[in-house]
Amino acid sequence: MPLNPDDKLLVHLPGPAPAGWLEAAARRFPGLEVRWEVAGVDAAASDLERADALPPETLAGVTLLCVYPPPSPRAMERVRVVQLASAGSDRWLGHDKFGDEGVVFCSSSGCQSVQIAEWVMGAWLAHRHHFRLYDEQQRRATWNARVLDKPVADSLGRRVGILGYGSIGRQCARLAHALGMRVYAHTRTERPDAPSRRHAGCYSVPGTGDPDGAIPARWFHGDAGFRQLLALGLDLLVIALPLTASTRGLVARPQFRQLHDASAGRTFVCNVARGPVVDTDALVEALEQGLISGAALDVTDPEPLPPQHPLWKAPNVFITPHVSWQSDALVPRIAGLIMENLERLDRGEPLLNQIKK
Amino acid sequence: MPLNPDDKLLVHLPGPAPAGWLEAAARRFPGLEVRWEVAGVDAAASDLERADALPPETLAGVTLLCVYPPPSPRAMERVRVVQLASAGSDRWLGHDKFGDEGVVFCSSSGCQSVQIAEWVMGAWLAHRHHFRLYDEQQRRATWNARVLDKPVADSLGRRVGILGYGSIGRQCARLAHALGMRVYAHTRTERPDAPSRRHAGCYSVPGTGDPDGAIPARWFHGDAGFRQLLALGLDLLVIALPLTASTRGLVARPQFRQLHDASAGRTFVCNVARGPVVDTDALVEALEQGLISGAALDVTDPEPLPPQHPLWKAPNVFITPHVSWQSDALVPRIAGLIMENLERLDRGEPLLNQIKK
Repeated sequence: MPLNPDDKLLVHLPGPAPAGWLEAAARRFPGLEVRWEVAGVDAAASDLERADALPPETLAGVTLLCVYPPPSPRAMERVRVVQLASAGSDRWLGHDKFGDEGVVFCSSSGCQSVQIAEWVMGAWLAHRHHFRLYDEQQRRATWNARVLDKPVADSLGRRVGILGYGSIGRQCARLAHALGMRVYAHTRTERPDAPSRRHAGCYSVPGTGDPDGAIPARWFHGDAGFRQLLALGLDLLVIALPLTASTRGLVARPQFRQLHDASAGRTFVCNVARGPVVDTDALVEALEQGLISGAALDVTDPEPLPPQHPLWKAPNVFITPHVSWQSDALVPRIAGLIMENLERLDRGEPLLNQIKK
Repeated sequence: MPLNPDDKLLVHLPGPAPAGWLEAAARRFPGLEVRWEVAGVDAAASDLERADALPPETLAGVTLLCVYPPPSPRAMERVRVVQLASAGSDRWLGHDKFGDEGVVFCSSSGCQSVQIAEWVMGAWLAHRHHFRLYDEQQRRATWNARVLDKPVADSLGRRVGILGYGSIGRQCARLAHALGMRVYAHTRTERPDAPSRRHAGCYSVPGTGDPDGAIPARWFHGDAGFRQLLALGLDLLVIALPLTASTRGLVARPQFRQLHDASAGRTFVCNVARGPVVDTDALVEALEQGLISGAALDVTDPEPLPPQHPLWKAPNVFITPHVSWQSDALVPRIAGLIMENLERLDRGEPLLNQIKK
């Protein structure tokens, strides 16, 4: 399905087109009408405005669409390709157009991996080096070196298990590897050989991630592999997989118990996927009982987390309000992905990041 | 000066010998008497006890000594080799034995680099990803995603200048490189070619650092090079050089002004060297006037920082009480260095980390 003269691209993102992008698109695809609209912020919902809010003439005739919150199917009448501004597609579950076999959906996986992996490794280092303890001392203007009574264990030689070895998991692996950690990858399906371990068909920012899958010391897959992974004695468990029927509640009481038994409660759990992948009650218990050494959560279940929720006050937990995807480079990266997928569309090649629905 | 039958090694460190170490030393150097004493903590001074406090018979006849706080010259009568447990030797300035040409001093440079580089990059990431803002929200149990009103700039493509390209600087470079940053090294003397860029004669934990000096995109040296470095538009400036007469007050008003002019106030300054390398009054001013985006300080001038000192409350500063060297791997790493230097001593070869006094 090459580009045709009727194609109209609407980009609705929280920033303008990068300098030169519109000109480059016009040169490369002279027949393509491009409408780039800056999406406003819906502060109350901590979300971006939906494309529905745009004037009807902006929506009219759009065939290629790039958005973050799903618009109503009505606003997407002629759309045949949707480029999501998110790595996950769970917000689209049940949406008419998502269910339509004739509409191709591509995630923006790879555009968030740099900042999210930084969030993960930053939270890990802050935890290991007791930054919040020192922050608290600083607020009281207290110099207390507590030499050796709160020992630091650095990352060299520590074990990290990564659930989901996509763009985010691979960039976490790159950083963990630089810290000298042993990386274990867990994937849904088996990756027995080099070709299967490549990050094929997916967008990556050049020079990031682990495109060949060369970093992991071992690979695990499926349910049995998940149990093997948790039995390794992990120092860090990174959750970076999509929310699906089979990943909902994946990390629950038995898993926290297993982490504790294998690692004497020293595992730190980072969730940058979706809140419901973790059983929240079990997580609060695990923190309170010291089954894990702590957790960093950019996602929770529910979201927003209500003020009275016990998770806020659980010991050794760090919570941010679903912001780890934020970066001033996000829009430029998505713009790069759009351009690449326009090329592929025009050449009739498979698009990057196409979602298997 | 090979080992001789009179040699007596006293190790006074805040932890026991690693499992098997004493046995290995006894096998390899059967004539060597080894005394390994665990150094207690002087909580009031946030320091380790001095070796002077040991019983006279433990100090008697010691020729090889490994310590952290300098003992009195009286307690070091026959000592000919001193292995410091610190990367810096500034605590020894003016000490009789340090001034004695006949006594060889070796730093433990390389044994702290992993944990200190983690501290640096953790502080950098925490700053860039607004962790303290979210920590504060968490204390108030507040979910506020503030979508895009506090933008994150991730590290990919950002510029880091590293003052002092020793063990700590090189490990910072390794981590920054994995984050996709452009690394600029500054050294005291010129490093024009590959051999001069190697980290020769220095201990490194295997698999860490940048032993060949391959990472920096550019090298700078001396006063002129320092001005060139500051003019690059740095996102991060890491201070990792020894405190000497020529580095005291190195980063002062003109340097903060230059950083501001070149980088529009976005430079984040990390000091993990010694407090007096930075002019404290100038730093407080730079923070208050926004000449830099913030600072992370594991060292201050003075230390301990008094409760009423304005630095505690300066905007965008993170202060820890000289603890970044802490790691449960420190003593095992120093033990590895001692063993290596015993080998070299016995073979009559130059010792690792020998300090040019």
